[in-house]
Amino acid sequence: MFVLSEDERAITETARDFAMEYLAPNAIEWDQTKHFPVDVLRKAGALGMGGIYINEDVGGSGLTRLDAVRIFEQLAIGCPTIAAYVSIHNMATWMIDKFGSEELRQQWVPGLASMELLSSYCLTEPGAGSDAAALSTKAVRDGDDYVLNGVKQFISGAGTSDVYVVMARTGASGAKGISAFLVPKDVDGLSFGANEKKMGWNAQPTRQVIMEDVRIPASNLIGDEGNGFRIAMSGLNGGRINIAACSIGGAQAAFDKAVSYLAERKAFGNRLLDSQALQFQLADMKTELEAARTLLWRAAAALDDGSADVVELCAMAKRFATDNGFEVANKALQLHGGYGYLAEYGVEKIVRDLRVHQILEGTNEIMRVVIARSVVGNV
Amino acid sequence: MFVLSEDERAITETARDFAMEYLAPNAIEWDQTKHFPVDVLRKAGALGMGGIYINEDVGGSGLTRLDAVRIFEQLAIGCPTIAAYVSIHNMATWMIDKFGSEELRQQWVPGLASMELLSSYCLTEPGAGSDAAALSTKAVRDGDDYVLNGVKQFISGAGTSDVYVVMARTGASGAKGISAFLVPKDVDGLSFGANEKKMGWNAQPTRQVIMEDVRIPASNLIGDEGNGFRIAMSGLNGGRINIAACSIGGAQAAFDKAVSYLAERKAFGNRLLDSQALQFQLADMKTELEAARTLLWRAAAALDDGSADVVELCAMAKRFATDNGFEVANKALQLHGGYGYLAEYGVEKIVRDLRVHQILEGTNEIMRVVIARSVVGNV
Amino acid sequence: MFVLSEDERAITETARDFAMEYLAPNAIEWDQTKHFPVDVLRKAGALGMGGIYINEDVGGSGLTRLDAVRIFEQLAIGCPTIAAYVSIHNMATWMIDKFGSEELRQQWVPGLASMELLSSYCLTEPGAGSDAAALSTKAVRDGDDYVLNGVKQFISGAGTSDVYVVMARTGASGAKGISAFLVPKDVDGLSFGANEKKMGWNAQPTRQVIMEDVRIPASNLIGDEGNGFRIAMSGLNGGRINIAACSIGGAQAAFDKAVSYLAERKAFGNRLLDSQALQFQLADMKTELEAARTLLWRAAAALDDGSADVVELCAMAKRFATDNGFEVANKALQLHGGYGYLAEYGVEKIVRDLRVHQILEGTNEIMRVVIARSVVGNV
Amino acid sequence: MFVLSEDERAITETARDFAMEYLAPNAIEWDQTKHFPVDVLRKAGALGMGGIYINEDVGGSGLTRLDAVRIFEQLAIGCPTIAAYVSIHNMATWMIDKFGSEELRQQWVPGLASMELLSSYCLTEPGAGSDAAALSTKAVRDGDDYVLNGVKQFISGAGTSDVYVVMARTGASGAKGISAFLVPKDVDGLSFGANEKKMGWNAQPTRQVIMEDVRIPASNLIGDEGNGFRIAMSGLNGGRINIAACSIGGAQAAFDKAVSYLAERKAFGNRLLDSQALQFQLADMKTELEAARTLLWRAAAALDDGSADVVELCAMAKRFATDNGFEVANKALQLHGGYGYLAEYGVEKIVRDLRVHQILEGTNEIMRVVIARSVVGNV
Repeated sequence: MFVLSEDERAITETARDFAMEYLAPNAIEWDQTKHFPVDVLRKAGALGMGGIYINEDVGGSGLTRLDAVRIFEQLAIGCPTIAAYVSIHNMATWMIDKFGSEELRQQWVPGLASMELLSSYCLTEPGAGSDAAALSTKAVRDGDDYVLNGVKQFISGAGTSDVYVVMARTGASGAKGISAFLVPKDVDGLSFGANEKKMGWNAQPTRQVIMEDVRIPASNLIGDEGNGFRIAMSGLNGGRINIAACSIGGAQAAFDKAVSYLAERKAFGNRLLDSQALQFQLADMKTELEAARTLLWRAAAALDDGSADVVELCAMAKRFATDNGFEVANKALQLHGGYGYLAEYGVEKIVRDLRVHQILEGTNEIMRVVIARSVVGNV
Repeated sequence: MFVLSEDERAITETARDFAMEYLAPNAIEWDQTKHFPVDVLRKAGALGMGGIYINEDVGGSGLTRLDAVRIFEQLAIGCPTIAAYVSIHNMATWMIDKFGSEELRQQWVPGLASMELLSSYCLTEPGAGSDAAALSTKAVRDGDDYVLNGVKQFISGAGTSDVYVVMARTGASGAKGISAFLVPKDVDGLSFGANEKKMGWNAQPTRQVIMEDVRIPASNLIGDEGNGFRIAMSGLNGGRINIAACSIGGAQAAFDKAVSYLAERKAFGNRLLDSQALQFQLADMKTELEAARTLLWRAAAALDDGSADVVELCAMAKRFATDNGFEVANKALQLHGGYGYLAEYGVEKIVRDLRVHQILEGTNEIMRVVIARSVVGNV
Repeated sequence: MFVLSEDERAITETARDFAMEYLAPNAIEWDQTKHFPVDVLRKAGALGMGGIYINEDVGGSGLTRLDAVRIFEQLAIGCPTIAAYVSIHNMATWMIDKFGSEELRQQWVPGLASMELLSSYCLTEPGAGSDAAALSTKAVRDGDDYVLNGVKQFISGAGTSDVYVVMARTGASGAKGISAFLVPKDVDGLSFGANEKKMGWNAQPTRQVIMEDVRIPASNLIGDEGNGFRIAMSGLNGGRINIAACSIGGAQAAFDKAVSYLAERKAFGNRLLDSQALQFQLADMKTELEAARTLLWRAAAALDDGSADVVELCAMAKRFATDNGFEVANKALQLHGGYGYLAEYGVEKIVRDLRVHQILEGTNEIMRVVIARSVVGNV
Repeated sequence: MFVLSEDERAITETARDFAMEYLAPNAIEWDQTKHFPVDVLRKAGALGMGGIYINEDVGGSGLTRLDAVRIFEQLAIGCPTIAAYVSIHNMATWMIDKFGSEELRQQWVPGLASMELLSSYCLTEPGAGSDAAALSTKAVRDGDDYVLNGVKQFISGAGTSDVYVVMARTGASGAKGISAFLVPKDVDGLSFGANEKKMGWNAQPTRQVIMEDVRIPASNLIGDEGNGFRIAMSGLNGGRINIAACSIGGAQAAFDKAVSYLAERKAFGNRLLDSQALQFQLADMKTELEAARTLLWRAAAALDDGSADVVELCAMAKRFATDNGFEVANKALQLHGGYGYLAEYGVEKIVRDLRVHQILEGTNEIMRVVIARSVVGNV
C-alpha cells in the first residue's frame, strides 16, 4: 500500500509530468488574469484524467480511488485550482457513470471522460450552505420532461461547463425529496451569474447557475427519483478525498519552495536553511504533510474497498488534509519573509487557493459533524 | 489604564468615526482597484493622525503611544492597509522629529504631521531581510552633501511619498556604520520600481526605491553619523506596536462581521449563532483578541514610560497580536462558509491584509530572536 | 497599572519572600507525602494573606483584587497547591465578609482572616458538576434553625477546615432556590469522605462533605434566602482570577527552572540554552505568560472597579491563564528531558498541580459558555 | 495494509484479550503501589509477546513490525507502562537476536523471548541525554574479557531485569568508538540506583545501572567492536514506533473512557455527549488518533520493507503519535471534569504515563533533528 507498484508509479509520473509542463509554468499568470485554461484541460482529458475512476466502456480510465488521489496530488503541485476543477469534473462525471441510465452514460460520459465536455456539480444554494438537504430548487414532472426552477451558488466551471449535475427537489422537504438531473448547457432558461471575485481559485470561474423554467427530458434523471441526495453525498466521498489530495499537493509545492528559498538565502553569515529553529518548523511541516498523505491513502483505499467506515474516513482525511495543507502552505509563506507576500514567488497564491478547500465539499465544521456522528453512534 | 478617560474616549471615537465614514465604505474597492487614497490620508492628517505622537511645536498631536495604538486599532477596523500606512508614516515622521536637527524638524515635520507630505521608511534591501544591519546602500560624504547609492525593497508608499527616511552605510560594516537620511522625492537619481503584485495591502503601493548618485545636503542627516541603525530600531519599537494595533483592529472587524453573519444565517432550523460549537470558537477568538489588546496596551505604556523592558514588550506584543490577529480573522472567514471566500463580504481582504503584519517591521521569527535575547540575557 | 507603586512592590515582595522561605523548599515533599501544612498557612495568615481583600474592621488586609492576584502569583511560585488553597479560603471568607450579617462577620471573619480558622467553599455535588444550579443539597427551615442534608464533592480543605460555606436549596429548583450557609466543623451530622487520590494538589486534602441532618442556627444564613447562587457566583469571579494567578505563578516557576536547566546542560558541545530552536520555544512561552499576566491584571482591575464586563473578563482571564499556564509548565517539563519526569526536579509536580486549574472554579468549557454568552448577548 | 487479514486480526485480538484480562483491571493499582508485575509479564511471554519480531529458531514469534505495533497498541489499551516495558524488552532482545553471535543468540534469546528472562536497554547516561554518542561508560578489553565502568541513567526494568544490553566506549570519542555488550544481572560490580520517583510509568522500575569493574566474557560483545552506536540506533527505529504504538493505545483507552463518561453524565437536562461543542472535540481527537495510527503503520511497514526513508518515517511516527497521543489523553481528562483528576477514573494515569513517551527513545526535539536532517539532506 505504501510502496507504489511500477504501474502506479507510471501513473503518478504521468500526472506529475503533465503538471510540470502545462500547469506550473502558467499557474501564477492564470491566477492574476483569472484565466480558465480549457485547452489545457482538454490535454489532461486526453491523458485520461477526465474520467480517472470512470468505467472503461464509456471512455474512463478505470483506475482506483487510490490512483486518483495520487494523480490529484501531482496535478495540484502544478496548480491547486486546476487540479481541484478536474477533481470536481471527475466527481460529477462519476455520478453519471455510476447512477445514470445506460443511455445517459453512453450519451454523455465519453465526451466528459475525454474532457471534450466539461461538467459542474450543482448542490449548494444561496440560502442553504451546510444544510444541503434543505435545498429549494424545484424539478416538476411535466409529461416526458422535468421543468427546473432555482438558483445554485458557488458552482465551479459554471458558464463554461457543458453539463450540470443538478440536485433538485421532486418531492417533500428533507433529503428524501431530492433527485439528481443532468442539465446540458444549451437549454432554454439556463443562465449564469457574474464570475465571483474570490480570494483565490481564480483560474476557474465560480458563478451562480440560474434555472428559470429549464425543461429537460425525463431521461436526464440520474438514478431514481428521491435518490438525489444519496447520490450527491456518494459523489462527495470521492470529492472530499480528491480535494484533500489537492491540498496536499499544493502544500507540498509550497514546502518545496520554502526549502529552496531557505537554501538560497543568507542572513547573519549563514544559509537560512541552517537555522535550527527554521529546521524544526520544516520538520513539523513535513510530518504533518506525511500524516495527512497517509491518512488520505487509507480513506481512498476504504472507498475502493467499500469499507463500512468510508464516510467517516473520507471526512477525517478531508478535514485533516485541508486544515494541515493550509497551515503548511501558510508557514511556507512565512518562511519566505517579505517575498512570500509577493505574487511572483507563487506561494501566496497557493495559500489563497488552499483556503477554500477547508470550506468546499462540506465545510470542515460539517466534517466534524460527520465524524462526531460516527463516534456518538458507536456508544 | 484599562478604563479610558473622557479625553481618551474622545480621541478613540474620532478615529472610529473617521474610519467608519471614510475607510470602511471604500476598503473593498480600494483593494480591488489597488487605489492609494491620498485625499483621504490628507483628511486623516487634518485630524492630527499624521503626527500622533509628534511634538506639538511642529504641528504634531503630542499624544501618547497608548493613544496611538488605540487610534490605529480604530483606523484598522475601517481598513488595515490604510491604518498601516498611516502607522508607517508616523514612524518615519517621528524619527525626524525625535532625532533630526531643529532645522530639519521645522522644515519637514509640519507638512508631514498634516499629511500634506507623505513619508516612507527605507530600511530593508533586496539582499538583506531579517539581517537589517547588513545593508549595503552607501552614503558618501562629498563636500556639503552626501551621495547615496543603493536599492531599498518593500517600501510602502514609494513613488507617492514626498519624503524617504533612508538608512545607508556611511562607515564600516555592521550596525555602527549606518546613518539615517531624509531624502526628498524630487532629487535627481531617485527612481522607483514597479508596484509589486501582493497578496494584500493593495490600497498602498509597495515599490523598490532606487538611488543612483542621489545627492542630498549634509544637513539631511538625521541624528549623528553611525547612529542610523539605533534610530531605525528606535522607530521600530513604535512601528511594531502600531502594526500590532492594526492587526487587532482588522481582527475585531472580522470578528464582528462573523458574529453578524452567524446571527443572520440559519441552518437546520436555527441561527448558526446558536450553535454551541461555533459559540465556543467565538469565545476563544474573543479571548485571544482581548489578551492581545491588553498586552499591546502594556507595551505601549512601557514605550511611554521608557521602561527597561520596552524592546521585549514591543516584540512580544507585535508577535502575539499579529499572529493571533491573523488567526482570528482567518477563523472569521471560515465562519462565513463559502461567502467568506468572496471579496464582497470583506473578510478575505482582512485576512490577506493582516498576513503581512506577521512579516513586517521584523518578521515574527525575528521577534522571537529579540524576546529570546532577553530571556537568555537574564540568566 | 503596569508599573508597581512602592507599596504594591512591598506587598508583592512580602508574598515572594514568604513563598521562597516556607513553600518552595517543602513543596516537593508535601506533594509526595500528601501533607497539608496548616502551620505554614497560619504563618501566611499572620502576614494578612488569609483576608487579602477582606475589610479591615474584621481583621482583613483591605487590599485590592489586583494586589491579590499579584500575591497569589508569588505564592504559587513557591507552591501552586498551597497558593490555591489560600485563594479558596479567601474566596469563602470574602463571601462571609461581603454578604454575611454583621454578627456573622464579627464572629467568624477575624479568625478566618488570620487563618486561625480555615474555610472551604462547598458548591459542587457528585451529580452536578458544570450545572451548579442543579444542586440538590437541601436546607429546611425548622424554627430558629436550618437543617441541611446532602453531599458536596471535590471540597478543598474538607476535614481540616473549620468553616464550610455551603450552597443549599431552600426553595424551588433552579438558581433562585439556592441559599448560602456557614456550617461550622463541629456540628452534629457533618462528616467527610476519604481523601481523594488525585493527579496533583496533594498538599491539600480533597474530600466529600457529607451532611446528615446538620442543624445550624438560622443566623448562619449568608445573605438572604434565594441569593445563594448569586453569592456563590460573585465569589467565583474572584476565585477565577485567583486560580488564574496560581497558574501563572506555577508556570513562571517552571519556566525559570527550564531556563536554569538549559543554562547548565551541555549537548553537542554547547549549552542547551544556546540552541536557537529551544530559544524560540522559550520566547513563545514567555510571551504567552506575559499575555496571560496582563489580561489577568485587567480582569482584576475590572473587579476592583465593578466594571460592567467583569464576569466575562474574569472568565477570559481564567480560561487563558490556566490553559496557557499548563502549556508553559508542560513545555518546561519537556525542556528538562528525562529529568523533567522525575519528582525531584519539581517541574512535573507543577504540571500535575496546574492541570486541575483548567477544571476548577468552573471548567474552561464553562468559561467558554460564559464568554460566548456575552458575545451572543451583544448581537 | 489497512484491512487486517484473518491472521492479523487473530494476533491483535490475542493481545487485546490479554490486555483486558491481565492489565486493565490492575493498572491503576500497580500505578498507585509502584508494582512491577513480573508474573504477568511471564504470561505475556508465554503468548509470544517477549519476542514478537524475533526469529523463530530461538523462540521468537517471527512476526512483522506491523504486527508488533498493533500488539503494542492493544497492550497499551490495558496499561501503557507495561506495554512500554514489553516494547523495550523486545528492542533489547532483538538487538541480541539480530547482531549477536550464534552462541549468544542460542544462550540468551530463548529465555528472553519467553520472558523467563527480562532485559533492559542501557544507552543514556547522567551527563548525556540527547547527545547519546557522547557517552562515557568504558569497556576495556582484558584478555578474554571486557571490563566495564560507568553509570547508565533512566534504565527501565533495572534491578529486576536479568540481561542488560549496554552501550560502552571501546575506542575513540564519537559514535564510532562505541560497542554493545550483553551484561548479565549476576556479575560482580553491577549495582543499581534507587527506584526513581516519577510522574508516571510507576508500574515499572527506573533506576541507574552502575558498573564498577564489571567483568564479562568477550563473547558477550554484540556485533563488532565500534558498531555499538549503529546497533543501538538500529534498535531505536523499532523502539520508536513501538513506543508510538503505546501512546496510541493509551490515548485510545482515554478517548473511549471519555466517550463513555459523556454518555452517562447529564447536565442542563441532556447527556454531555449531546453537546455539539464537546462532539467537535471528540471528532478532532478521533481524527488525530487515526492520522497517528495510519502514519505509524506506514513507518512499521517501512521497517519491514527496509525502505530508504525508514529512519525519518520512524522519527515522524514517533513524534506525531506521542505528541498527539498525549494531547488526546489530556483532552479526555478534561472531558471528565473533576473526575478526570481522580486516580480511580484511570484517565489521569494515562496522561502521566504517556507524558514520558514524548521524551523517551530520543526526545521529540531529537526527532525533529532527525526529520530535519532528511529535509536538508534532500536539497
